[in-house]
Amino acid sequence: MKTVLVGSGNVATHLAFALQEAGVAIVQVWSKHIQNAKTLAKEIKAEVIANLSEIDKQADFCILSIKDDAIPTVAKELAGFKGIILHTSGAVSLAVFEKHFRKYGVLYPLQTFSIKKDVDFNKIPICIEANTNETLESIRQLAEKLSGNVVPVDSEKRKILHLAAVFACNFTNHLYALSSDLLADYELDFDMIRPLILETAEKVQHALPNEVQTGPAIRNDEQTLKKHKELLLKQPQLLTIYETLSESIKKTKK
Amino acid sequence: MKTVLVGSGNVATHLAFALQEAGVAIVQVWSKHIQNAKTLAKEIKAEVIANLSEIDKQADFCILSIKDDAIPTVAKELAGFKGIILHTSGAVSLAVFEKHFRKYGVLYPLQTFSIKKDVDFNKIPICIEANTNETLESIRQLAEKLSGNVVPVDSEKRKILHLAAVFACNFTNHLYALSSDLLADYELDFDMIRPLILETAEKVQHALPNEVQTGPAIRNDEQTLKKHKELLLKQPQLLTIYETLSESIKKTKK
Repeated sequence: MKTVLVGSGNVATHLAFALQEAGVAIVQVWSKHIQNAKTLAKEIKAEVIANLSEIDKQADFCILSIKDDAIPTVAKELAGFKGIILHTSGAVSLAVFEKHFRKYGVLYPLQTFSIKKDVDFNKIPICIEANTNETLESIRQLAEKLSGNVVPVDSEKRKILHLAAVFACNFTNHLYALSSDLLADYELDFDMIRPLILETAEKVQHALPNEVQTGPAIRNDEQTLKKHKELLLKQPQLLTIYETLSESIKKTKK
Repeated sequence: MKTVLVGSGNVATHLAFALQEAGVAIVQVWSKHIQNAKTLAKEIKAEVIANLSEIDKQADFCILSIKDDAIPTVAKELAGFKGIILHTSGAVSLAVFEKHFRKYGVLYPLQTFSIKKDVDFNKIPICIEANTNETLESIRQLAEKLSGNVVPVDSEKRKILHLAAVFACNFTNHLYALSSDLLADYELDFDMIRPLILETAEKVQHALPNEVQTGPAIRNDEQTLKKHKELLLKQPQLLTIYETLSESIKKTKK
């Protein structure tokens, strides 16, 4: 299986290494950021192409792992590619490809990727979608080389998964950040909170979050809520978030 | 070391088992909920007392692990106890004890406890505080039987830690819950999001959360933000949270 990779960001890089490890040859890499493409291509021993027109016409897959906004433009430039064209986005519909290709699909790894940290692809849910059953099977074969958790998901449901991921990952990380900033203001170390963060995530691996909600809001502990709000009086942004989320937690009890 | 335990909730129960495992004898258990006290006392082979006046006068420690609001009242009933009296609350000041006792302090384990799930006490930061250095040392000796991470923290800083924990744990769990509800609305399994939740928490074990923020808000990906808000139009509460947290994330970039 010959694959072309378009992109050189977090997802593209992790995917490239995981594919290589799974024995899938990446023959070419293209990126808007040519220097990044060179760095990545060197590491995975692929060819760098400077123009999308140089794409290997014999490749089985071309994977677009680029910013959502860039997918339509790049797809247009690749029009007529004979293999299967894929994107890896949670939020972009399958239909983005329909004008320009005969075989197309989506391979969306539901995970957060950072350049600095390795992830075990085998545990990552990979959502796949395609324009035909035959193409879906080809994508499934590719995806199953990466993960034991490959799930067909249509564009509408994939969008919901992406949105749910924003709540469970991006917003959660921001709460960690607010917590870290608050500690720093009082010269307290973020290390004090790290075990709590891990335990909170581990707890919902085998329970539903609503079943294990703790804290003053779910207990209706008005005195503590009041004290906390007083501590945040000089930080209106934190106060708004505190009030919004506390109210939302209270509603789950009803 | 003889210890009396007042309380039978999540924290009290986990603490009781951890103390017992560390070789600290719990001689008596009292709880407002006598049946819970009986269950716990039976498991740790302690005596149940129905009235606080029956407390063992020779005990070295009396640990109040009860609701914040109940601490002043129970403290008053225990007035004159000769050992060291402690509470385990993040939000209640050390001064709650000063009228009634000569030796008093705080032992606050910074963790989230659920009856259903075991936790490894050894990794939990335990914040300690006392009215004298001598009492602090006694509390330190007790706390170090439980954890390798015992830190003296005064009441003011402890309140900040508790508030930071609400952001990093209680609010975070609520975001998991909102995510889970959203998935359920579309008949998607929460299992799809569980690996992401764990990875998000693991990522900040060795990085600061601001350094690893991902998602549409930090990328200023206005198209995706717009699409997400459209998906939430019929859920005003989720929409408010989405907008509040996205705005807050954008501000961190500036």
